[in-house]
Amino acid sequence: MTTKFNVLVMNGPNLNMLGKREPEIYGSQSLADIITKLEVKAESLNINLQHLQSNAEHELIDALHQAHNKVDFIIINPAAFTHTSVALRDALLTVNIPFIEVHLSNVHKREEFRQHSYLSDIAEGVICGLGAKGYEYALDSANQILNK
Amino acid sequence: MTTKFNVLVMNGPNLNMLGKREPEIYGSQSLADIITKLEVKAESLNINLQHLQSNAEHELIDALHQAHNKVDFIIINPAAFTHTSVALRDALLTVNIPFIEVHLSNVHKREEFRQHSYLSDIAEGVICGLGAKGYEYALDSANQILNK
Amino acid sequence: MTTKFNVLVMNGPNLNMLGKREPEIYGSQSLADIITKLEVKAESLNINLQHLQSNAEHELIDALHQAHNKVDFIIINPAAFTHTSVALRDALLTVNIPFIEVHLSNVHKREEFRQHSYLSDIAEGVICGLGAKGYEYALDSANQILNK
Amino acid sequence: MTTKFNVLVMNGPNLNMLGKREPEIYGSQSLADIITKLEVKAESLNINLQHLQSNAEHELIDALHQAHNKVDFIIINPAAFTHTSVALRDALLTVNIPFIEVHLSNVHKREEFRQHSYLSDIAEGVICGLGAKGYEYALDSANQILNK
Amino acid sequence: MTTKFNVLVMNGPNLNMLGKREPEIYGSQSLADIITKLEVKAESLNINLQHLQSNAEHELIDALHQAHNKVDFIIINPAAFTHTSVALRDALLTVNIPFIEVHLSNVHKREEFRQHSYLSDIAEGVICGLGAKGYEYALDSANQILNK
Amino acid sequence: MTTKFNVLVMNGPNLNMLGKREPEIYGSQSLADIITKLEVKAESLNINLQHLQSNAEHELIDALHQAHNKVDFIIINPAAFTHTSVALRDALLTVNIPFIEVHLSNVHKREEFRQHSYLSDIAEGVICGLGAKGYEYALDSANQILNK
Amino acid sequence: MTTKFNVLVMNGPNLNMLGKREPEIYGSQSLADIITKLEVKAESLNINLQHLQSNAEHELIDALHQAHNKVDFIIINPAAFTHTSVALRDALLTVNIPFIEVHLSNVHKREEFRQHSYLSDIAEGVICGLGAKGYEYALDSANQILNK
Amino acid sequence: MTTKFNVLVMNGPNLNMLGKREPEIYGSQSLADIITKLEVKAESLNINLQHLQSNAEHELIDALHQAHNKVDFIIINPAAFTHTSVALRDALLTVNIPFIEVHLSNVHKREEFRQHSYLSDIAEGVICGLGAKGYEYALDSANQILNK
Amino acid sequence: MTTKFNVLVMNGPNLNMLGKREPEIYGSQSLADIITKLEVKAESLNINLQHLQSNAEHELIDALHQAHNKVDFIIINPAAFTHTSVALRDALLTVNIPFIEVHLSNVHKREEFRQHSYLSDIAEGVICGLGAKGYEYALDSANQILNK
Amino acid sequence: MTTKFNVLVMNGPNLNMLGKREPEIYGSQSLADIITKLEVKAESLNINLQHLQSNAEHELIDALHQAHNKVDFIIINPAAFTHTSVALRDALLTVNIPFIEVHLSNVHKREEFRQHSYLSDIAEGVICGLGAKGYEYALDSANQILNK
Amino acid sequence: MTTKFNVLVMNGPNLNMLGKREPEIYGSQSLADIITKLEVKAESLNINLQHLQSNAEHELIDALHQAHNKVDFIIINPAAFTHTSVALRDALLTVNIPFIEVHLSNVHKREEFRQHSYLSDIAEGVICGLGAKGYEYALDSANQILNK
Amino acid sequence: MTTKFNVLVMNGPNLNMLGKREPEIYGSQSLADIITKLEVKAESLNINLQHLQSNAEHELIDALHQAHNKVDFIIINPAAFTHTSVALRDALLTVNIPFIEVHLSNVHKREEFRQHSYLSDIAEGVICGLGAKGYEYALDSANQILNK
Repeated sequence: MTTKFNVLVMNGPNLNMLGKREPEIYGSQSLADIITKLEVKAESLNINLQHLQSNAEHELIDALHQAHNKVDFIIINPAAFTHTSVALRDALLTVNIPFIEVHLSNVHKREEFRQHSYLSDIAEGVICGLGAKGYEYALDSANQILNK
Repeated sequence: MTTKFNVLVMNGPNLNMLGKREPEIYGSQSLADIITKLEVKAESLNINLQHLQSNAEHELIDALHQAHNKVDFIIINPAAFTHTSVALRDALLTVNIPFIEVHLSNVHKREEFRQHSYLSDIAEGVICGLGAKGYEYALDSANQILNK
Repeated sequence: MTTKFNVLVMNGPNLNMLGKREPEIYGSQSLADIITKLEVKAESLNINLQHLQSNAEHELIDALHQAHNKVDFIIINPAAFTHTSVALRDALLTVNIPFIEVHLSNVHKREEFRQHSYLSDIAEGVICGLGAKGYEYALDSANQILNK
Repeated sequence: MTTKFNVLVMNGPNLNMLGKREPEIYGSQSLADIITKLEVKAESLNINLQHLQSNAEHELIDALHQAHNKVDFIIINPAAFTHTSVALRDALLTVNIPFIEVHLSNVHKREEFRQHSYLSDIAEGVICGLGAKGYEYALDSANQILNK
Repeated sequence: MTTKFNVLVMNGPNLNMLGKREPEIYGSQSLADIITKLEVKAESLNINLQHLQSNAEHELIDALHQAHNKVDFIIINPAAFTHTSVALRDALLTVNIPFIEVHLSNVHKREEFRQHSYLSDIAEGVICGLGAKGYEYALDSANQILNK
Repeated sequence: MTTKFNVLVMNGPNLNMLGKREPEIYGSQSLADIITKLEVKAESLNINLQHLQSNAEHELIDALHQAHNKVDFIIINPAAFTHTSVALRDALLTVNIPFIEVHLSNVHKREEFRQHSYLSDIAEGVICGLGAKGYEYALDSANQILNK
Repeated sequence: MTTKFNVLVMNGPNLNMLGKREPEIYGSQSLADIITKLEVKAESLNINLQHLQSNAEHELIDALHQAHNKVDFIIINPAAFTHTSVALRDALLTVNIPFIEVHLSNVHKREEFRQHSYLSDIAEGVICGLGAKGYEYALDSANQILNK
Repeated sequence: MTTKFNVLVMNGPNLNMLGKREPEIYGSQSLADIITKLEVKAESLNINLQHLQSNAEHELIDALHQAHNKVDFIIINPAAFTHTSVALRDALLTVNIPFIEVHLSNVHKREEFRQHSYLSDIAEGVICGLGAKGYEYALDSANQILNK
Repeated sequence: MTTKFNVLVMNGPNLNMLGKREPEIYGSQSLADIITKLEVKAESLNINLQHLQSNAEHELIDALHQAHNKVDFIIINPAAFTHTSVALRDALLTVNIPFIEVHLSNVHKREEFRQHSYLSDIAEGVICGLGAKGYEYALDSANQILNK
Repeated sequence: MTTKFNVLVMNGPNLNMLGKREPEIYGSQSLADIITKLEVKAESLNINLQHLQSNAEHELIDALHQAHNKVDFIIINPAAFTHTSVALRDALLTVNIPFIEVHLSNVHKREEFRQHSYLSDIAEGVICGLGAKGYEYALDSANQILNK
Repeated sequence: MTTKFNVLVMNGPNLNMLGKREPEIYGSQSLADIITKLEVKAESLNINLQHLQSNAEHELIDALHQAHNKVDFIIINPAAFTHTSVALRDALLTVNIPFIEVHLSNVHKREEFRQHSYLSDIAEGVICGLGAKGYEYALDSANQILNK
Repeated sequence: MTTKFNVLVMNGPNLNMLGKREPEIYGSQSLADIITKLEVKAESLNINLQHLQSNAEHELIDALHQAHNKVDFIIINPAAFTHTSVALRDALLTVNIPFIEVHLSNVHKREEFRQHSYLSDIAEGVICGLGAKGYEYALDSANQILNK
């Protein structure tokens, strides 16, 4: 009998407003819709999926600390914190859990300050612009990496 | 009978210390004093005024989310978050409520890093250096814009 | 019996075209309309208001020199000279009269080169994006400062 | 009966050496292996898949011109041309076919000059660091976009 | 009988993970170990020592506000906030309490973005790279400064 | 019977010295010579040609204001103002008349500060380095654009 | 009997797609249409006109080498190579034939990276934004320069 | 009998306010005082001295044009135009008269934007910070250069 | 009996024009002359020498791929590609053959953009400014390195 | 019986003037006073202390070379050489002796060019702004590191 | 009876070669010639003149230390040290003697790196490009300042 | 009978430690070993070879001054002074002796600040990364240049 891997999905600030916010950029799906679909996929991959969305940097950091030695892979859409949070970077370095960075929209089409990420160079990989599907590809990739 | 407009006044980190902090730059008035005067003016303009001061970025973001579809205009003094918070910018973009950015002191007389704002280019306008009066002018302008 | 304060309102290049120029940015009011309203407000504040608009940098400088020891406060919309005129800055330093910088449109929404002002760091304060009302707020603030 | 969509997969310079080149960065799979797997997936999605690898910028450009009005979606790993080829960008703008940019390795872990792409801001999205799986996710995403 | 001075020791985000995080950079001592030793030293210097670690910027700011007029000196390891928090800088300016900035590791050996501190130019001094001993030197220096 | 189009030719500072100034760069033709030839060509194209040379920025601006709704096309050699005059840019934006920017010499061979123009991005096109012929090509192009 | 001058017209990558590509920027004329008109003009000026369009940098370089000592003047629209090809610059320096740089669209209205040309400072002159007419003006200017 | 040399002294914007403006930087001498002394020195050196102060860039340019072939040397304090006027630079290049740049105050102690001069690299030399004496040294140096 | 080492000499764009191109910078020797001399030296060192000159980036890349596991050392004068070709850098990284970068002229005397090389930091060494002798020193050095 | 460790204290240019130089920044203690106290502490730690102050870069370098294999730890206040001496950095790399960088004043409060150190990234740690006590902390830290 | 003032003239590296070095830039006068003339002028002004030329930074620094409390004014041509020596700046700050910076040639006509001086912002004034006369003007100015 | 040419070999700071310093970068040969071999080669070329190594910038400068009109060619490894010494550059310009710059290691593989040389643009050529052989190639090249 194989062990189930634990994957933590984290969503940063304002993503709780998905579906209400700039639908021409982010689509009309709510975050709950996305996570529900992702849970179905996780189940099919025999993965335990946990999810946390927070607008507070410290809640994301605390969750990362609690994930230490418990979570096998992280899928993170850091939203605005991508560009400003060294503390989140440090938390990811601290817990040393592999992660993939996901962005719903193509950040390269947006403001100059969105072209720099404090996380990308320590991530396994980055997916952007593919909408909610990006999380699914990240989960599939996590599964592949964990089973290598 | 006309509907009352709702205006939310938001003050960022350290503004709770007003009157105690660097009085040569920020004056000796407390934040409570300023808001009290502003409420008087709001009443005279038939405006519902709400106020929130917080040192926590996520509380300001949460308040903005709750303001969605309820508040007609925002007057915000983002203080230090002016220069660092993409999350606050995103929250304002998310709720899509027009706002005026106010600074008590003239930020242009201060450190180089205070010359950039993550909010100004998505604001209706910006007022700085006019002390507590800046909020009153912002409220008057909000009133004018809402009644156009 | 109190002395009347003298306030000089100065408008820089192209502002004579107000109402004719890019109305989607600057509104359809003419400069004369704005000044007329401002004069009414000045009278109510017991202030002598003078006004000068010029497309010539040297005329603005000459007027500043003549204001020396005669004018108590300046409200200036330097328009394009905001970003290019060290000579105007020097003239304001020379006459040492407190002033507020006003812009009709929100310059932060416009080209990168409009993000720097040669005047802001020596002004009392700056108002931008609030249209013709910006002059009125500046006048009110001038009145408040002069009567402190 | 539904029409089959045409997807063109393009690989830039040095990718013909995959499996021989820096295996610690790019893995030991050959390009032929990757394309074979991708063709299987394409078939399952009822997609016609064409593939071109070239070390010559002009061959990629010529292929793009020929794809005009024939190909529905492009998956491109521009390799070194990502960072240097305005001509490739222009070719993609010319033929106006939606595309996803794929990188096998996480370019954000590499040299500074690899942090800029001439294609990302005109792409639908970008996937990097997920190895050969990146092409599959791109194909899946292409399929989803084409069937929207 | 002499008055005891009050010294507040503040530690920023992720420092609660000390001993668990990148031990090759930060050593294997826990934060509790460090503070215990520091309390012994404080006692020997007749100093009241308080300690706060938080991953939340606003908690550090709130603690600074409460320290106003109560605490005589601050020893702060701002961790990631060193490089991103103007709000923390403003809080320190607001309460106007002298402080020393301490870093366990030598930040100059690390990423480029760690070379700038929003606090150093308003600190009494800075110690970095000397491990937990850095706090002791800071305490000794605080004692010396307070007794000058 | 067709209406004649009105084209205004404007020349900026020091161009009155043409023929006397740095002949190895600007040739030995005087400005009068150039305009005379241009008038002949204008006549052949059934165009009314006006010309203004001024060393004063405000005279060029005033002339642009007067051209509002009267002139159909502008050919401007802004000379030194190319690189320094936001006011001239604003005047051209104000009057909203299409224009071509002409330089006698190839500015790209000269000092670094001559590589930036405040006008080029709002011009129809730019011609440089082709001497007095540049004005003729601009006039021909104006004629073509106006008759489209 | 006078000798005929030889003029080589070179067009860089993607210009073969003219008329098919972004017609709102580049117009609907094909390259063949443009060259046909240009040949008529060349004949009237008693000039031998050769033309080469290529998407391959090395083909343009080879053609320049073959033009050495045979061609009297070059009219080049380097398209994307303008901004990236030092090799093309070197080829033009090598053969030492005078040339005019032509761009159909006004590159100054486009992306920042299109503001730098590797050829302009070694060209006789530059024409941009005047559409296909730009080639004709260049040919006329070449004729004038060759007959000086 | 020797010919007298002609030296033109030019003073830029705001220098008419000398003695009234920031005396701690510029001293209390008026411009008239300075010129009177300079005329005495000129006489002793058998030099014809002319003087022009203007706040208008075009008046300085016009005066330079009129000096062409009449004036042997120029002493210029361009004041604010030092840092902004390419037109003045071009006028000096046009008339090709040797000149010395003089500043009353030490510009190197002042704002960053005063560290660049559009004139220094085409001047014979530069004197700054030596007050009114700077003009005398410039005159002496002019005399020496003219008599070499 | 010792094995002969294989050394590949590669020359980039425009070097086929050597002797015809800017002789004051590159000398009057043809490339054939240089290679002939180099072959003599190679023979004396018991080295097999191959040579390729190409104006096409992809031909250089293809040749590098073919050299994989066959060639022991590369001497490359990348000419213009030095400053622009990431693809060539990647090809050299791919085949992982040690190489020396040679430039005939001293690139440090030339344009700013020639001060950066995409190859130097992955080369064994760099020789520039020593003319054709540079290739001989590189060959000698290759021989020394291969026999270490 | 334990071996005594050897610690070399080095002071760079102008530190011989301590007590005479800018006492508001550096205090009134002479360098001799500081070293005397440091020797007392060294003795108590069973450390041999040597000291060298020099205004000459080469004397500091020579002393470092002589320390090779003789000195166990270096405490260096490089003063002005901090910001300019690559040679001192190289000397420290050459002798490969661990060292701590000390500055009496807080360099972060001073000129921009004092924000970069050529030594910090190769030091064990850095202490600044704590006056003469900084040397004592460095000595204590050296002792701790040597006895680990 | 008046006290004689002491003025120290310092010349930096390579100035001992004056007359032998690049005479087209620095003239053919030797340094001894210049100092001899300067001594004559000093005598006429009742000033004691000392002179030191050194190619060694530390000798200039040592001389400045010795001048402390003995020398009333310094005239310094720091030559190459102008652009690189923070130690010289610090020595001048240490001894706190007013000084004028002199350059024989006009540094503004030379390399970019010669446009920055580590001394100018702490000097009384700067003279450049006026040859050996520059020292005389500096001495005259020193005399004037000392007798104020 | 031919005259012997004089070649001066100069080595900058820390090169006296060769063989003791970072052997993985600089090899285990001592400087004496290198010079001995070089003298043998010099003899075979009928060249007088002098050598100077110094850690003191002024000794290198003094030696250059003494070489004036005596030495025909210089081979210099300026070591750390490469990146910091304008004085050395000026000394080389002063004596006007042709020179080749040599570096033992490939500086392009090292820190960013080692990518700029104050000497390369005035050198005949540059050799780096070829170890001690670099001096021999420089000597051979010197011989070739001197005998041209």
